[in-house]
Amino acid sequence: MNNFKFWSPTEFVFGRNTISNLGSLMKKHNATKVLVHYGGQHAERSGLLKDIENILQNEFIEYIKLGGVQPNPLDTLVYEGIDLCRKENVNFILAIGGGSVIDSAKAIACGVSYGGDFWNFFEGTVTINRALPVGTIVTIPAAGSEGSDSMVITKSDGMLKRGAGSPFIRPVFAVMDPVLTFSLPPEQTANGIADMMAHIMERYFTQTKGVELTDCMCEGALRAIIKEAPVVITDPENYDARANIMWAGTIAHTGICGVGREEDWATHKLEHELGALYGVAHGAGLAVMFPAWMNYVYTSGLDRFVRFAVNVWEINNTGDKKEMALKGIKALKDFFISIGLPVDFRGLGAKKSDIDKLIEKLSINTGGSLGNFRKLDMEDARAIYLLASQ
Amino acid sequence: MNNFKFWSPTEFVFGRNTISNLGSLMKKHNATKVLVHYGGQHAERSGLLKDIENILQNEFIEYIKLGGVQPNPLDTLVYEGIDLCRKENVNFILAIGGGSVIDSAKAIACGVSYGGDFWNFFEGTVTINRALPVGTIVTIPAAGSEGSDSMVITKSDGMLKRGAGSPFIRPVFAVMDPVLTFSLPPEQTANGIADMMAHIMERYFTQTKGVELTDCMCEGALRAIIKEAPVVITDPENYDARANIMWAGTIAHTGICGVGREEDWATHKLEHELGALYGVAHGAGLAVMFPAWMNYVYTSGLDRFVRFAVNVWEINNTGDKKEMALKGIKALKDFFISIGLPVDFRGLGAKKSDIDKLIEKLSINTGGSLGNFRKLDMEDARAIYLLASQ
Repeated sequence: MNNFKFWSPTEFVFGRNTISNLGSLMKKHNATKVLVHYGGQHAERSGLLKDIENILQNEFIEYIKLGGVQPNPLDTLVYEGIDLCRKENVNFILAIGGGSVIDSAKAIACGVSYGGDFWNFFEGTVTINRALPVGTIVTIPAAGSEGSDSMVITKSDGMLKRGAGSPFIRPVFAVMDPVLTFSLPPEQTANGIADMMAHIMERYFTQTKGVELTDCMCEGALRAIIKEAPVVITDPENYDARANIMWAGTIAHTGICGVGREEDWATHKLEHELGALYGVAHGAGLAVMFPAWMNYVYTSGLDRFVRFAVNVWEINNTGDKKEMALKGIKALKDFFISIGLPVDFRGLGAKKSDIDKLIEKLSINTGGSLGNFRKLDMEDARAIYLLASQ
Repeated sequence: MNNFKFWSPTEFVFGRNTISNLGSLMKKHNATKVLVHYGGQHAERSGLLKDIENILQNEFIEYIKLGGVQPNPLDTLVYEGIDLCRKENVNFILAIGGGSVIDSAKAIACGVSYGGDFWNFFEGTVTINRALPVGTIVTIPAAGSEGSDSMVITKSDGMLKRGAGSPFIRPVFAVMDPVLTFSLPPEQTANGIADMMAHIMERYFTQTKGVELTDCMCEGALRAIIKEAPVVITDPENYDARANIMWAGTIAHTGICGVGREEDWATHKLEHELGALYGVAHGAGLAVMFPAWMNYVYTSGLDRFVRFAVNVWEINNTGDKKEMALKGIKALKDFFISIGLPVDFRGLGAKKSDIDKLIEKLSINTGGSLGNFRKLDMEDARAIYLLASQ
């Protein structure tokens, strides 16, 4: 087991009608002037935004609104948010939505407190050392950004999709009402499931030995997701299933599933290029790229893939490790298909002929190497994209 | 699934030589005058106390020392600590040890900030609403107090052993070096293992439905402990096994294994009377009381016990639920025996003839009822003590 630090100070307020806690949560964090940040029409049409405005008004908390966050959130809106916060002396950011909105809020929060261009954080040239407090009202269980220390933003100039992180951007609270997720369409629900599973698998596939507890927790969380996923797809108003999936999205990305080991994250980087080039949903992109990555790297750590097959997918132990590993990968792929996810370029609307373009960007964004389970160069990446395109 | 709040703001700094982080952690929490709180000779003889004093001196942080915390920590030392902190204007408490020392430190921390008798918190007449910050250096993996919001103190007058809790007493940091646990004797190691398993099982045995994720995480954590336990007993300097057991002690009691459901805690209350009357090690008492409690209540939730048998102990599904449930309970008992734990009154040095006395105290401490999986009255409690005494 490797040494680690784990710090997850977010206050999670989970369950039916927990929005009623919003006023006291805002007061606790001395919010007096708030940027309410959200996506598109859903927050408005559902009445959620209006409810939140009423709560803020009743608590005499001033606020301004900035909507329009899109999937694969753009730097342009972050710049707009930073300017707005400075102009209006905002001291708290309230994000209403899923990972895109929360990531955009995090980027604004650390950008406001920084004199230079916030994109420096994403170029890795400057370390984040403070941020405005961010609170979240989660409406899409997927990215786990409500409990994570990371964010991903796409630079519209050049479509560079990059991540950055800091303990300072962990949200101070997350209000999570599973009922708010009842109206998510099956496609978005499935994308979220792929995203949270990917967050666990990026941590699970490691060469670090002696991390039994973290392994067992990863496997447990994956099994719970696999059990609840078909329920939320076929019975979208099943409260308990929605609640388990929602909490799983958070658990998958607080870091608790990764402590004590080297994580991988190659698949996320491979997917980010698809997101940047085509604007595909992150979860759908991951559902395509994870099995492809697995098929390419599994011989570099056969025992880990056998364990994945047995403990997550209940594949029988036949003694033939290679066969078992491949059955585990196939089980994952079949599971993605069963909940309506794409598992190849075609399903995603991506083109084999764009692989050169993907590799070019990937090379810029990663410096030419990625992954830890197996260190990959751009030839490896090309081979994985090819596997995904077949 | 029930609504819940989960907040675990402790910063865990885990691994070899992590004590080197102590200075910066203390500065981060503005510690200028520290009470160093510890148990007996181990901290002194091992050189750990001296190392810590050197770090504080190098950082120019003033400190005073209060040792002498015993297993089943007493109110008398808490009063002494409170007086000392007030007299010396202490603004930070550093606990070096396991659950007893950390609990004693927590009680001092909230007692200092309260005008009345700190025991009021344990009588439930007053709510804790602030406390001095507590940092911990963990040397015994067992109670998980380094990451929990609870504490247990024994009142020497009448030997009342009681718990209290508050978010305000969660430690601000925990330095956890598994190497510090290499020297723990097998008996104390096993007691710790029983304690952490009990913390998970008190949460796992619930009548709340629809908590699949939390169930899977409990089962995963139990499986990891069961796998690593024999290793730490037979090979006490096995770093990875010690590390997994140490982290399991924390995970077992942060609350993450209990979110979304009603917890039980009857067994802890039954054990507390054994601890108060005989001064038995908490883990040993739990190893005796848990199987007895299970044998008494399992018919009140057979499916839960079947799941425990199958998912934790890999008992074959024969279709005979009662038989499977009993096999699971027997597997737990056999496991406790295999790592040298007592599983009955005799092994604990407790006497059947004292059951009246135990019930009398239990009645005072619980108001006559305990548990949630099955609501128990004093006649039930008597029957469970009888089962444990056979």
